[in-house]
Amino acid sequence: MVETAAGAFLLPGPVKMHPRVLQAMAAPAMNHRGPEFKEILSEVHDLTQYLFGTRGEVAVLSGSGTAGLEAAVSGLLRKQDRVLNLVNGKFSERFHELCQVFTTPTALSFEWGTAVEPEQVARALDSGAFKAVTLCWNETSTGLTNPIAEIAKVVKDHEAFLIVDGITAVGGLENRMDAWGVDALVMGSQKCLAAPPGLSAVALSKTAYESLHSDTSFYTNLKAHTDALAKQDTPYTPAVPLFLAFREALRMLKEEGLENRIARTRRLAEAARAGVDALGLGVYPDRRFASNTVTAIRYPAGVDDNAFRKELREKHGTVVAGGQGPLKGQIFRIGHMGICDFQDLEAGFLAFETTLAGMGHKAARGAAVAAITKRT
Amino acid sequence: MVETAAGAFLLPGPVKMHPRVLQAMAAPAMNHRGPEFKEILSEVHDLTQYLFGTRGEVAVLSGSGTAGLEAAVSGLLRKQDRVLNLVNGKFSERFHELCQVFTTPTALSFEWGTAVEPEQVARALDSGAFKAVTLCWNETSTGLTNPIAEIAKVVKDHEAFLIVDGITAVGGLENRMDAWGVDALVMGSQKCLAAPPGLSAVALSKTAYESLHSDTSFYTNLKAHTDALAKQDTPYTPAVPLFLAFREALRMLKEEGLENRIARTRRLAEAARAGVDALGLGVYPDRRFASNTVTAIRYPAGVDDNAFRKELREKHGTVVAGGQGPLKGQIFRIGHMGICDFQDLEAGFLAFETTLAGMGHKAARGAAVAAITKRT
Repeated sequence: MVETAAGAFLLPGPVKMHPRVLQAMAAPAMNHRGPEFKEILSEVHDLTQYLFGTRGEVAVLSGSGTAGLEAAVSGLLRKQDRVLNLVNGKFSERFHELCQVFTTPTALSFEWGTAVEPEQVARALDSGAFKAVTLCWNETSTGLTNPIAEIAKVVKDHEAFLIVDGITAVGGLENRMDAWGVDALVMGSQKCLAAPPGLSAVALSKTAYESLHSDTSFYTNLKAHTDALAKQDTPYTPAVPLFLAFREALRMLKEEGLENRIARTRRLAEAARAGVDALGLGVYPDRRFASNTVTAIRYPAGVDDNAFRKELREKHGTVVAGGQGPLKGQIFRIGHMGICDFQDLEAGFLAFETTLAGMGHKAARGAAVAAITKRT
Repeated sequence: MVETAAGAFLLPGPVKMHPRVLQAMAAPAMNHRGPEFKEILSEVHDLTQYLFGTRGEVAVLSGSGTAGLEAAVSGLLRKQDRVLNLVNGKFSERFHELCQVFTTPTALSFEWGTAVEPEQVARALDSGAFKAVTLCWNETSTGLTNPIAEIAKVVKDHEAFLIVDGITAVGGLENRMDAWGVDALVMGSQKCLAAPPGLSAVALSKTAYESLHSDTSFYTNLKAHTDALAKQDTPYTPAVPLFLAFREALRMLKEEGLENRIARTRRLAEAARAGVDALGLGVYPDRRFASNTVTAIRYPAGVDDNAFRKELREKHGTVVAGGQGPLKGQIFRIGHMGICDFQDLEAGFLAFETTLAGMGHKAARGAAVAAITKRT
């Protein structure tokens, strides 16, 4: 377990979990149709609404974020429905692939590292009868946050559903889903909530909930999941230990306060970007849209991705993610969401500085950590 | 936690878990794309083949048994394909409902508590061009095991796929899937393996694997899951803690030995049925097909289901399941699979005897426990 014994666990998900969350899983078997689990589901339901900042219908599925996205798409749309997929990274590409199975999608693509442009979305929607638009709010692959409020306004003006992948956004970025008019918003348990991977949650607008159908989905039938949770039940056997951990992580979010969690996440991101500057590196995306939950960092010339991450892991017990797709070898990515704290960032950047120095990239000694510490 | 502190946890799933399995979940976050998790998946792959007694392709999905069934049906069949669903209980009914979403199914129904009759299956297959047959091998709702070998022979004679719900069978009942010609066999983690709920595994025949398509599924895309696991990967974020627990439960199965586990499960079932007799009660299903993993027990006249199970739970810390659908109030059901042992059965039957006596149903004092103990 070298990877987690020391240093910092800075993946953009799964993220570090609190011992309270870990221990919640190690409970003896429980009747998931009994009164004890009903109480758990009741608390999970209410705290999930708190997490999303909504009073609308919510569902929690025993499946990863992809299951939540599938539930939203297959529950709201049918094969012949035209959908506009906004694509500017790996996860929005995958969202497009998912829509190819359940709908008739068109991709509107933007260069990786640049944000979705609302005006272009408006023009695309003017050009055809789209029933829905999909957006990856926070592109984990490029460390970029798309301007969701502006995009939502355009989509609402065109009376289409807005289905949002908020997997690395919900619980970490400021969220006004009801005011913006988001119809379906999906989160993943192992990101900003800092629960283990394996659950996803979906929050729905009133119109979206009333439009749900059950014709093309079974395991991810969103209507079945939503209606069941409203009466403290699940349509199929739930992943009980993950629900126990999810509840504990939700309780910890409530204890900290959602607004405080989001503000702290923003401060961590600002500190991370200051650390990047101090190392003489650059953030990958258009800086105006740099994410507050994930920072994507460009490698300096001559630094090998695999060697860098291997040394980080083995010598410093620090875990980060590489680039995906065309960005492989060009960037590395860190998460600073959930219960990540300034000490994690300091340990991480100290390891980056040392490792990069050994590979020929010099920066003022201690400058990155100092830049971070200044922002605590 | 009254439910598990004393007495016996005898649900027909989820079942009692070993502390080793529980503790396996409480591990710190891990990179599911890193070398450590690859090793885990490699071990899970090989031990899952061992569990199924096959050298064929296997997949492990982050979803309940229903997700596994959906993966098999949606991966092998298309909407226009005719499928014969063999229905004789609650779970085979649900399997039929699932097939209504992804195929064009016909139900061939048998009275609950009676077994599927292979001759009738043959006649139905003679009457139409069915691409597949679905079977619930062990009907948890009625405590009945269908004659899978005979049914498989009929299905193979008609050159149809045989897709089997083995959720409460695999790891508890004698399994010759390759010899019988089962094309897709699905298990659930929280049953005979005694892992937590939330994972399902699917084993495939060579023909079935080669027939998989990816056109109508995404999260449960069986080809994607199978191909990924073969190279120690998963198509989407896996429920890491559940994989850790699943591996530990597989290791415990291997330590005991699959044949030994199955033989012990049979002895426990024989003891349970002897206990039922000693209480002067009856098993619900046709006794020739009584299940070795689940026993369904008829209530004597005048015993109220809710009152009985409430008193069991609150006074004896013993948890059993009631009847489902038309059997609600008529039967209660116990599981004796996984790591269930004779002490669990003895504690359970002592609680049954005491509770029934208080409700006016008398049996020779201590006879049930004695009947069980005799078979240890």
